[in-house]
Amino acid sequence: MPDPTLSNSPANTPTDLSTRDTSETLQDSDLLKRLLSSRQGPKIHQRQRVADSRLFHIEAIDLEFSNGETRQYERLVGKGYGAVMVAAVTTDHQVILVKEYAAGTECYELGLPKGLVDPGEDHLTAANRELMEETGFAAKSVTKMTEMSLAPAYMSHKIQLLLAQDIYPQTAKGDEPEPPEVVFWPINKLDLLIQSGQCTEARSLAGLFMLRDKLANL
Amino acid sequence: MPDPTLSNSPANTPTDLSTRDTSETLQDSDLLKRLLSSRQGPKIHQRQRVADSRLFHIEAIDLEFSNGETRQYERLVGKGYGAVMVAAVTTDHQVILVKEYAAGTECYELGLPKGLVDPGEDHLTAANRELMEETGFAAKSVTKMTEMSLAPAYMSHKIQLLLAQDIYPQTAKGDEPEPPEVVFWPINKLDLLIQSGQCTEARSLAGLFMLRDKLANL
Repeated sequence: MPDPTLSNSPANTPTDLSTRDTSETLQDSDLLKRLLSSRQGPKIHQRQRVADSRLFHIEAIDLEFSNGETRQYERLVGKGYGAVMVAAVTTDHQVILVKEYAAGTECYELGLPKGLVDPGEDHLTAANRELMEETGFAAKSVTKMTEMSLAPAYMSHKIQLLLAQDIYPQTAKGDEPEPPEVVFWPINKLDLLIQSGQCTEARSLAGLFMLRDKLANL
Repeated sequence: MPDPTLSNSPANTPTDLSTRDTSETLQDSDLLKRLLSSRQGPKIHQRQRVADSRLFHIEAIDLEFSNGETRQYERLVGKGYGAVMVAAVTTDHQVILVKEYAAGTECYELGLPKGLVDPGEDHLTAANRELMEETGFAAKSVTKMTEMSLAPAYMSHKIQLLLAQDIYPQTAKGDEPEPPEVVFWPINKLDLLIQSGQCTEARSLAGLFMLRDKLANL
């Protein structure tokens, strides 16, 4: 029987809003209980490659959920060794952004430097390499912040977000077709950046908000 | 000739960090100038469908950048009428999250309700419909917040983020294979949600941070 204090309810059996508990009275450990699911995941009956290109693999999977419902889903399966995104900041809390041509949306997009991890490379090294290649700066300190997914409903891709500090000029040759433009942006003006419409990528936006919180707590 | 006050520099010609201007002395209009690029976009010489599946189209495009460099990029081309993501909040600033099976990462993922826009549907209607289908709640007020891209380097997909307020119980039948679990989460505990590792999607995370900022400024 579900614990009524958790405010969890399956859809189509709505909770009475007036009876919900509020966060004011709950400890973090009680709140975390809300996130735990005891539901059993679906069985995967079959996997099939349905399309391939140089960059992408598309797989169809036949699923049977614990309630007996069956579905066929399609998913993009990532190749390679993962990806990194770098939140690099100066001592006066400006973050280094790069503007690059984005072939998906066919426009220039401003965002955090990022790239694929090379074979045999760890995430910290990959982050500093991408930073040097894309911005002309390196960091004496690189630390892990979190891992993000993109669209987990249909993509297996994940990206590691890393914090880069103690920045100094240092270049490395990358494979960019044209040198990215580099913009130093004050993290306390994140709202203005979003309003500009120049930085739209969810991963960059989430990374910038996390950076702002991190710096506020340092 | 570039304006030296903008702190813009192409990669591989590093800026001397000590000579950068700081945000303290700049107006918003000066800051926005940093984001403007006068660079000419690449020419697209050829487009070719290289793979297709039920959900995905993959296109190869031959690009020539303004400096003469050429590349072939691959991109995922979205189908359909767009997508919406809903940040629905109660009067005591709890946000409605749903936990659903994510076939891309093969685990249950907690995030903001979202879904595809139906033919002929506007974004506000789609947002309220998805909210009813996935959470068992509807909103008397739905307003646009922003538009986000996913991975603009290789995906054309965009999603509209909408704010839903004045929530009341109301269901609608969706096509979910199993009823999503619904979690009310206090927006001022966003750090705890991230630490839990249950909510990893960049779009949900960015949406939740934007919601927190929005509520702080209301």
